[in-house]
Amino acid sequence: MRKNLIVAQSGGPSVAINATLAGVIAAAQAAPGIDRVYGGIHGVEGIQAGKIVDLTDFHEMEKLKATPAMALGSCRCKLPPVDQKDAPIYQNLRRVFAEYDIGYFLYIGGNDSMDTVCKLARLFAGEPDAPVFLGLPKTVDNDLPLTDHTPGYGSAAKYLAITMNEIIQDTAIYAVPAVTIVEVMGRNAGWLTLAAGMPRFAGGTKPDIIALPEVPFDEEEFLRQVRETLSHSPNVVAAVSEGIRDKNGEYVGSSAKSGAVDTFGHAYLSGVGKYLEGLVKKEIGCKVRSIEINLMQRCAAHLASLADIEESFALGKAGVASALRGETGRMVALDRLSDSPYSVKLKTVAVEEVANLEQLVPEKWRDLSDPKAVEEIRDYILPLIQGEVPQFRNEYGFNEYITFMK
Amino acid sequence: MRKNLIVAQSGGPSVAINATLAGVIAAAQAAPGIDRVYGGIHGVEGIQAGKIVDLTDFHEMEKLKATPAMALGSCRCKLPPVDQKDAPIYQNLRRVFAEYDIGYFLYIGGNDSMDTVCKLARLFAGEPDAPVFLGLPKTVDNDLPLTDHTPGYGSAAKYLAITMNEIIQDTAIYAVPAVTIVEVMGRNAGWLTLAAGMPRFAGGTKPDIIALPEVPFDEEEFLRQVRETLSHSPNVVAAVSEGIRDKNGEYVGSSAKSGAVDTFGHAYLSGVGKYLEGLVKKEIGCKVRSIEINLMQRCAAHLASLADIEESFALGKAGVASALRGETGRMVALDRLSDSPYSVKLKTVAVEEVANLEQLVPEKWRDLSDPKAVEEIRDYILPLIQGEVPQFRNEYGFNEYITFMK
Repeated sequence: MRKNLIVAQSGGPSVAINATLAGVIAAAQAAPGIDRVYGGIHGVEGIQAGKIVDLTDFHEMEKLKATPAMALGSCRCKLPPVDQKDAPIYQNLRRVFAEYDIGYFLYIGGNDSMDTVCKLARLFAGEPDAPVFLGLPKTVDNDLPLTDHTPGYGSAAKYLAITMNEIIQDTAIYAVPAVTIVEVMGRNAGWLTLAAGMPRFAGGTKPDIIALPEVPFDEEEFLRQVRETLSHSPNVVAAVSEGIRDKNGEYVGSSAKSGAVDTFGHAYLSGVGKYLEGLVKKEIGCKVRSIEINLMQRCAAHLASLADIEESFALGKAGVASALRGETGRMVALDRLSDSPYSVKLKTVAVEEVANLEQLVPEKWRDLSDPKAVEEIRDYILPLIQGEVPQFRNEYGFNEYITFMK
Repeated sequence: MRKNLIVAQSGGPSVAINATLAGVIAAAQAAPGIDRVYGGIHGVEGIQAGKIVDLTDFHEMEKLKATPAMALGSCRCKLPPVDQKDAPIYQNLRRVFAEYDIGYFLYIGGNDSMDTVCKLARLFAGEPDAPVFLGLPKTVDNDLPLTDHTPGYGSAAKYLAITMNEIIQDTAIYAVPAVTIVEVMGRNAGWLTLAAGMPRFAGGTKPDIIALPEVPFDEEEFLRQVRETLSHSPNVVAAVSEGIRDKNGEYVGSSAKSGAVDTFGHAYLSGVGKYLEGLVKKEIGCKVRSIEINLMQRCAAHLASLADIEESFALGKAGVASALRGETGRMVALDRLSDSPYSVKLKTVAVEEVANLEQLVPEKWRDLSDPKAVEEIRDYILPLIQGEVPQFRNEYGFNEYITFMK
């Protein structure tokens, strides 16, 4: 009996998440076992309110693959515990799934979105005609466990590596001592900060300082490194994670100390770069500037990695195949077979082993004075940041993007 | 009698300033009237200290054209008044010019650098065998008078237009009301802020708010526009110049009120975006984020405009021709003949009419609700941001750049 498929996106955006969506739509359209292909607008929050578009006849896959952020929109919604099975959102979702005859629910997202997949799979567990609930990973942070890396990371890493290379050029022009502090995303995991370090790992000398959130940050040691670098170079460039903490686990930087938290109870961060800028100004007194790379690291589609986009597309297609095999409560993941030539294998893992867990930079890659670690990091990141994605430009030379939100 | 030429760079960097340098070197190497081609390291500050490299046999022009910032380094040096002709820096420069048998001095820079050219031309005026002093314009700010635009502006404008387009995509994904404030460079002139408005001028609807420094900024009116936009759209995007001022001419934003000034007596700016973020949070209370585009808008060589790079190269070559004709105390400038097909003519103007003056966005282009103004702005900017520049990548896929600083 042919059923319908619904796909939605959740959590923070990336440059590759629409490529995964394109893969799902393409494979679902081609699957004999699937009738209609629906898209949920604004994740489970929109789906439960009936915000659904029909994608069965959508065919602009290449343009969708080149569109940053989320063509279906997103939400940040934490579902109630599964034992509250009569919670309004669960009742609404049941009604919508029945109304649209949903046999397959595919959800593209990060840690919190996998929590949603996990809960829905449990909610419907053992029921006859229960939809298949499948997760598809994405996060620029690269912090999902049980997968070699996550779609979206490669493009963000490429943006950071190339931008860092340009910032290093820009800040090298004056003879007067100057310090530049570049603040990179990554609340707990240092993967993006490692990407910002690529100009050094790939044969250069800068950035001089790379501060991962996995390594306790010592302000005195930081100042010592700045002074030491200034003794032989007129300028210092530091790549610093937004989430660096001191040896007591306290976030470095003023606003981090305010105790503000986001919807999920994560500490709300901003201003680590600004804080260190002030510290250098006060303690060393030279010219100093901080740069927050901000949203650009997750939305710079013009610099997307072709390897990332094509892999994300393939992962979306694999998700449909897994769903058709009835793999509920699972997430598609990547196994790396080889760095060079780069080769990966797609598999699925139990979503409860992924949900709400974080994959940090492993211990062996945290000491960046170790040449072996640096070589391994470089070999890990390099294949993920290769290749240019075709751009769709309008008459003015501006990119045209797809959106399913009206 | 064959003389030698020296070229140097000064002021803030851009993506196109090395293309102008490449044009100067190429034309000087080819000119029968010129013997050696020298580069001064770190502008007049380095030249007076004898920091000079020989570029007579340098031939990697295409790679130099694709290198951001300044391959010769830069300085921010205000020369003393010309009546202080015995000032140490003037004595040192005379000695170096004599030692290196300099017949032509070409200086690539912005307003303050043209002040240097102006003073040196006056210092040597009427002397037999005085070098020719010629200025070549560059500034991402596009704020030099007597030229249609400045080299470097087109590439910065392209980066801002495309990045803004991506930010608009990124911030459109949630159903919850949110405000995004993008802070753009431009102390007094709104040219870069206009470039950030291009996604709207080229047929889109956002950014919703565009605040130029030429137009007095009214916080109440800003909040009214934010509220009005939120009444029909879940998200608001504002492009705001770093230099916006209130009706009394005071810079908007906290740190601007501290009274800090840079070497040239300009107010030191930062945090207008942060200030408005706080204002929206306090007065409207919705989700709000500010983004400072920072150095990326002036160093993103990966997104340089081919039109800008090739024009900058041609301008460098024209500078050598003008110098050979003995045009001292002048700056090469651009006259626009036509928007479409785009066509410009190179000319020279008296440097004292350029030095220390700023070209603001004209009165007729400040009312962005006027469709005629918007059409003219679009036609002005579009030809400057077209075309991709070939990239030189190493074995790792990273850009290779030229530097003459050891």
